[in-house]
Amino acid sequence: MKFCSQCGHTVIQRIPEGDSRLRYVCEQCQTIHYQNPNIVAGSLPTWGRQVLLCRRAIEPRLGYWTLPAGFMENGETMEQAARRETVEEACANLKDLQLYMLVDVPHISQVHVFYRAELASLDFAAGPESLEVRLFDEADIPWSELAFMTVHKTLECFFADRKLEVYPVRTDALPPSRPI
Amino acid sequence: MKFCSQCGHTVIQRIPEGDSRLRYVCEQCQTIHYQNPNIVAGSLPTWGRQVLLCRRAIEPRLGYWTLPAGFMENGETMEQAARRETVEEACANLKDLQLYMLVDVPHISQVHVFYRAELASLDFAAGPESLEVRLFDEADIPWSELAFMTVHKTLECFFADRKLEVYPVRTDALPPSRPI
Repeated sequence: MKFCSQCGHTVIQRIPEGDSRLRYVCEQCQTIHYQNPNIVAGSLPTWGRQVLLCRRAIEPRLGYWTLPAGFMENGETMEQAARRETVEEACANLKDLQLYMLVDVPHISQVHVFYRAELASLDFAAGPESLEVRLFDEADIPWSELAFMTVHKTLECFFADRKLEVYPVRTDALPPSRPI
Repeated sequence: MKFCSQCGHTVIQRIPEGDSRLRYVCEQCQTIHYQNPNIVAGSLPTWGRQVLLCRRAIEPRLGYWTLPAGFMENGETMEQAARRETVEEACANLKDLQLYMLVDVPHISQVHVFYRAELASLDFAAGPESLEVRLFDEADIPWSELAFMTVHKTLECFFADRKLEVYPVRTDALPPSRPI
């Protein structure tokens, strides 16, 4: 950030009065520009014993497999964001969404939130951000070709919990310096 | 937002190619300025059967009672943010934090996240953003003087769950147009 989005003047970094962190502050209009973490919301869609994954058509991690997920938008709930991302990336509708996994990703200031859900039908296809969308049995999950650690952790938890058929809300955090 | 924070030129609102939402876009450098929801993280601190509340010294809702909570900062986990806000607002340290409540607040593009936790000691006091910090028995909770609906819902859930001594992670959402 170099310029004030309110008045166009240059910003500097300083700790505002009563604060303890460096912020971008406008030297002219004194607006403080806070920057805060983003929520990535997604789903773990199932069809019977199978799980839906998308192969990414975009960077980062182009060509790798992921659960449908993306940045939550203003005005949405987390569940609405998870539904929307699943439509956009897998052209798939979900039913019975249940909050399942929250993973802090502090080194990139994100929180990843996944809902378990059943596919409403077998009507799915690759959206513009996916090369391919497929159902996988547990034995066929491409563990070494998963796009993100948070997807890896979510799938690991899910298959472990499925053995007992009990799915408490799970939480985890990536280390401060770990690659996503 | 009126000016590009990267180059200082004026921004316009348009739907970028491949997108479906209006964004602020710089007419000169073409930077797209996304705006996304914020996470408010806080705690429900207990001491025996009592719950700690803070009376707000700042707007909004100055003079009303709240659970210690505030905006999650970049680089933090949600639990770290809840701990930090409890130190800042109530000068109190927590132990045994457990994720408890997530409430979507879509009309102001926020998600409020509360952790149940025990006070580490009776060493607490009003921080700069609090007028007063007190422990309350359930019978004495100032229901009509609570600052925020999300605090109201969190306390309601907590006292209901406490009857059974089982505390699953709870989720809720305020309606799109409801006052906070």
